[in-house]
Amino acid sequence: MSDPTVSTELTFAADPDSYRHWRLDVDGAVATLTLDVDPAGGLHPGYELKKNSYDLGVYIELADAVQRLRFTYPQVRAVIMTSALDRMFSAGANIGMLAQSEHAFKVNFCKFCNETLAAIEDASESGQTYIAALNGTAAGGGYELALACAKILLADDGSATVALPEVPLLGVLPGTGGLTRLTDKRGVRRDLADVFATTAEGIRGQRAMDWRLVDEIARPTDFAAAARQLAERSIAQSGAPPAVAASSNAGIELPPLSCNGSADSWRYEHVLVELDRGAAVASLTIAGPAAPLSGVAELHDAGAASWPLAAARELDDAISRLRFGEPELGTWLLKTTGDASAVLASDDVLIAGDWLAREVIGLWRRTLRRLEATSRSLIALIEPGSCFAGTLLEVALAADRQYMLDGVFEDGPADQEPAAIVLGPMNAGALPAASGATRLVTRFGSAALADAALATAGKELSAAEAAELGLVTAAPDDLDWEDELRLVISERAGFSPDALSGMEANLRFGGPESMATKIFGRLSAWQNWIFLRPNASGPHGALRRYGTGQRADFDRKRV
Amino acid sequence: MSDPTVSTELTFAADPDSYRHWRLDVDGAVATLTLDVDPAGGLHPGYELKKNSYDLGVYIELADAVQRLRFTYPQVRAVIMTSALDRMFSAGANIGMLAQSEHAFKVNFCKFCNETLAAIEDASESGQTYIAALNGTAAGGGYELALACAKILLADDGSATVALPEVPLLGVLPGTGGLTRLTDKRGVRRDLADVFATTAEGIRGQRAMDWRLVDEIARPTDFAAAARQLAERSIAQSGAPPAVAASSNAGIELPPLSCNGSADSWRYEHVLVELDRGAAVASLTIAGPAAPLSGVAELHDAGAASWPLAAARELDDAISRLRFGEPELGTWLLKTTGDASAVLASDDVLIAGDWLAREVIGLWRRTLRRLEATSRSLIALIEPGSCFAGTLLEVALAADRQYMLDGVFEDGPADQEPAAIVLGPMNAGALPAASGATRLVTRFGSAALADAALATAGKELSAAEAAELGLVTAAPDDLDWEDELRLVISERAGFSPDALSGMEANLRFGGPESMATKIFGRLSAWQNWIFLRPNASGPHGALRRYGTGQRADFDRKRV
Repeated sequence: MSDPTVSTELTFAADPDSYRHWRLDVDGAVATLTLDVDPAGGLHPGYELKKNSYDLGVYIELADAVQRLRFTYPQVRAVIMTSALDRMFSAGANIGMLAQSEHAFKVNFCKFCNETLAAIEDASESGQTYIAALNGTAAGGGYELALACAKILLADDGSATVALPEVPLLGVLPGTGGLTRLTDKRGVRRDLADVFATTAEGIRGQRAMDWRLVDEIARPTDFAAAARQLAERSIAQSGAPPAVAASSNAGIELPPLSCNGSADSWRYEHVLVELDRGAAVASLTIAGPAAPLSGVAELHDAGAASWPLAAARELDDAISRLRFGEPELGTWLLKTTGDASAVLASDDVLIAGDWLAREVIGLWRRTLRRLEATSRSLIALIEPGSCFAGTLLEVALAADRQYMLDGVFEDGPADQEPAAIVLGPMNAGALPAASGATRLVTRFGSAALADAALATAGKELSAAEAAELGLVTAAPDDLDWEDELRLVISERAGFSPDALSGMEANLRFGGPESMATKIFGRLSAWQNWIFLRPNASGPHGALRRYGTGQRADFDRKRV
Repeated sequence: MSDPTVSTELTFAADPDSYRHWRLDVDGAVATLTLDVDPAGGLHPGYELKKNSYDLGVYIELADAVQRLRFTYPQVRAVIMTSALDRMFSAGANIGMLAQSEHAFKVNFCKFCNETLAAIEDASESGQTYIAALNGTAAGGGYELALACAKILLADDGSATVALPEVPLLGVLPGTGGLTRLTDKRGVRRDLADVFATTAEGIRGQRAMDWRLVDEIARPTDFAAAARQLAERSIAQSGAPPAVAASSNAGIELPPLSCNGSADSWRYEHVLVELDRGAAVASLTIAGPAAPLSGVAELHDAGAASWPLAAARELDDAISRLRFGEPELGTWLLKTTGDASAVLASDDVLIAGDWLAREVIGLWRRTLRRLEATSRSLIALIEPGSCFAGTLLEVALAADRQYMLDGVFEDGPADQEPAAIVLGPMNAGALPAASGATRLVTRFGSAALADAALATAGKELSAAEAAELGLVTAAPDDLDWEDELRLVISERAGFSPDALSGMEANLRFGGPESMATKIFGRLSAWQNWIFLRPNASGPHGALRRYGTGQRADFDRKRV
């Protein structure tokens, strides 16, 4: 079995000029993304990508295209997604690839696809509407890709179907949101969703419309015009284009990130990743801006080199690479260095800004959600010289715990100032978590406590003040700092990674749900999964070993 | 390994006079439930229930006590839950029992516990407030039992702790809602919840209060008085007791259900269960009331023999017995026989009724939720002679699909009337699903379509009308009926039971959540679990077998 999970060479960089699986064409306000998968272009050996079936490589290019459309082509208002093949939009995730992949890879692959689909929806709701123009059959993940679009057009040629054949053919679920989007997004009746998701051959034509599986159907001869009309109608409905000053109407390029280092440490421009395999820990250190951003003009001039955009892209890339490449590093330490006031100045420019500023905020929003959807223990370390303010404070709030040094390090530099954190407008709603609630409200489960914290906005909060407001988990002084953190890290490394993933997923996603749906739906699901894992129930698992005097023997790979 | 899953002898009947693990004492408006687990009283051999640890038998008695308090002791307004042991409230689920149990049993055990905890909360919110009086340590499921209570009092004796040691000691999650209730119910800050749930030894005294893990602490000498005070305060706060007429102020007894039959068919008074092992199907047929309920006085006179109460208790019992005893019967057919107008008359009495009527409605609400939380495919069959109206229509709406015969059976009795369904006030909000939304709104994902259906309330809807309103999945006529159902049933029996469980759990629980939290939380969790199951990824699983020409070889046990 090939083992894609250990590849540290996996790159999430892509460029339209060298896409192997997509074509991106921009024609005024309408872009077209054409899926034309190279069967021989799989990321790993052992499978062929026939019928526009996809693997992670296809989705890495799609994620790049979605991102690039927002930053480089802001004039685009509608994106038509279609296929270059005859009578086949996409057969979905490649089954050979899934069959040969390890559990951890499958889970991370689905997660990355889900995040890309969320980015498509995020775009559809804020300026660039996606239209799925299904010129042929869309099956499984192919139809799930269409479901992420705002509108779906299906060819009415007597053969093209939409289908979710996973349950009847593969014994698994549609893994990228299909069941949820059927009912919650498209309003498909739930009994019809049941029939549809158990009908391997799918549904076509008028019935697909009647069941709300697609929005429109069109004969092959009318198909291209119908897709174009849907795009134009969505542009007309979404109102006036975002105002762009003459000096700032051009999109900005997104060049490849520069990243250097060894297998144990890589450095981007603003983000440093250090791996400690012995302790099973990765540290991510984000450097704040070297100087305050002066205004939106500077943002445009600097483009991808501007701090808020560059730092977000780098953090996003580091998260994906660590997820796939370093499954055994179960704890991530999140740190910052720099000047809090420069971070807050950048935030002020972004909040008051134009379309580009909004796109940068959007990228932080998605990146923070990617961080929270990561099955690693996240520990924020707030030390002297750090700049956890505004946007960067959200990084700390995304973590499972926050440790803040009370005072300074005795053996640190002479000019040390004690660590401070500062709240700002970015903490008040611009960067909501996946539930739609802010991280502060999610943290406290209470708007009142969140408001009390927000009332200090702009003030440098000491460790004692932050602890009093409930913004940090603990505030040890220099005497205790090292011992306490060593204990936390070694304790975490000794726990079942499956239990930690389940626990963190449950504690991180508070918000507007009913308790009963959570307990019966989400919590039980994680529990079932954990019960099945050898780490709990295998011959060396914790349940079997409990009481024997032997410690459980865990496979430390995180999933 | 003992295999509790195949026991068909498991009974959910219990009676306070013969409890082995609890004492129920009623003193005016305050009841006390004392946990005193008999170590030798385990349901299955192979483990000892030390330190008030529990197995399913302990929870069956608890579920009985919670139910009985509502029907037999309506004067009770507060229930103090405490322990007979010194310095130990409960050590939680028995680990030896968990270690020797099969996956399916563990999952069903947790589900039954979760449903019982939900019943405690349901009572706390509607007339009987539960107070956890932790006179000693409450660990794991012991603390989760306390979390289901409205208030928690902890002994402040220097040793009693509350704890969730599952993650650090067992490599599994607290399986009965602990993580969710910590944050969503008690407002424990999520980073502190993380620290708490990874601290095996637990938290005691003032810190447990500061972290909101308990509501009060009391010295051992003051403990009993403090518990009593909490009970009295909750009574005072919950307002006047429910009005009871002189003729109806007494609770009603809940005698054991009468149930006769063989291993393949059992008959309660109103519910018939028939098992077809060859087809992997169980049929549940609910007979409607023999005559309309004349009023609330008749409800009191008949008590547990009254149709709406008896039918709900029988259905509830049948669900639990089939879940544990018949895991290989993956499809349940839901049928009714009787007079729709008599069902609607009973509904009218309940809706206009007193405390007993409210309790009967509450039992239907919980029973319908138990049905929906069951991992079996649920198919409602609406045939001539059925009475899917009001409360019984909710049974059909809880199903995954509804099939309604259009016309009559050609070879049926001469006086057949075509099947009809009738909506009534019970479908408009009195029996909400777990999300809090009605089944009609959940079905359509749309209040407008639900309202359109409700506008027909009281009218007998033919198959064609029901289909037009979207209330049934299909309306075949006599020519197609048998073939179509045979196809549905055999198709269902051939699918992966894990994939079906995951699909149904996702389609059944629509409602107020954000799509992203569902996709990343619930859906991914089910998917991870399914990926791990041999039915998907084992050597004979569907993913491995796909494309080989061999069919997957499924273990048909449902979990």
